[in-house]
Amino acid sequence: PRKQARIQDPTIEKEVFVSLEEIATGCEKKMKISRKIYKDDGSVVLEDKVLKINIKSGWKSGTKVTFSREGDQIPGKIPADIAFIIRDKPHPIFTRDGANIKYIYKVPLREALCGTIVQVPTLDAKKVGIDCAGEVIKPTTTKRLQGFGLPNPKDPAKKGDLIVDFDVLFPEQLSQSSKDIMYDVLS
Amino acid sequence: PRKQARIQDPTIEKEVFVSLEEIATGCEKKMKISRKIYKDDGSVVLEDKVLKINIKSGWKSGTKVTFSREGDQIPGKIPADIAFIIRDKPHPIFTRDGANIKYIYKVPLREALCGTIVQVPTLDAKKVGIDCAGEVIKPTTTKRLQGFGLPNPKDPAKKGDLIVDFDVLFPEQLSQSSKDIMYDVLS
Repeated sequence: PRKQARIQDPTIEKEVFVSLEEIATGCEKKMKISRKIYKDDGSVVLEDKVLKINIKSGWKSGTKVTFSREGDQIPGKIPADIAFIIRDKPHPIFTRDGANIKYIYKVPLREALCGTIVQVPTLDAKKVGIDCAGEVIKPTTTKRLQGFGLPNPKDPAKKGDLIVDFDVLFPEQLSQSSKDIMYDVLS
Repeated sequence: PRKQARIQDPTIEKEVFVSLEEIATGCEKKMKISRKIYKDDGSVVLEDKVLKINIKSGWKSGTKVTFSREGDQIPGKIPADIAFIIRDKPHPIFTRDGANIKYIYKVPLREALCGTIVQVPTLDAKKVGIDCAGEVIKPTTTKRLQGFGLPNPKDPAKKGDLIVDFDVLFPEQLSQSSKDIMYDVLS
């Protein structure tokens, strides 16, 4: 009889959510999988296995890591491949834009007008100060902290920026006497 | 001989840019076309023609108006159709969002804080006042003028809104004495 080509089921895809801090440094993720092994005598064994994903620093969302033939073992078939798709885990304060990281600094109107030192949190849990004592921070003001973004996956020495936008917080109301003073000062 | 089906060339598409004011009221656009008429004796005549498009109020960008068989006349072929695709002409001060119209009002910080009457231009070249004398206008403030947008093409009596967003204009610099006063007033 003519030899039949062995059949392989489609790749099984699973998403792996990785924090921006983990993307910044790179990390190892251990993924536990279970697979069925169908024996020739008709019995089925469930096998647990741990697959290690070596996540390189700067990897983009959508990067796919494939483990060959780690699916169920069925007689006469090639076990399916298992692929892990890297996704960005939503971050409480930062958003990602390629290799850049964006941060919105909420600044009270008083500090925006009278000057302040802006303390910006970074991915390595430190703070970097930006001296805005001598300037007015406007709603359109943007600051860039060069090199405080994510590494370039092709050249981890090159890093993106931490881009700071400002949300100027206005008072809800002002008293008439405050308005009168402001009206004169801002003329 | 078996009768051959007559062939028609693909529809000729042309874009027609229409202003928001014209969309608001509806209008007629006269489109001049030139087509070649190939005679049986081998001569070619160029014919100029005016096609009238009746643009209904509220039409969306992308609406297509087709004139049947207005292309070149070639013996043995059916003249192509001519289709006009309605597009929004960019407006100097408004942008369109469906039936709504958006307007960005630039307000100096002094008026934003101390109160002002906001004079909003409308599509019919008038102005509508919004009384903001008793409130602080923030960069996130939005006002809606209901019914000052574009008509719904299916029911022209229903109209969208004119949505007003604010761009609060900050001073470039403040003197130290102004800062000191502001610092006290905004505490």
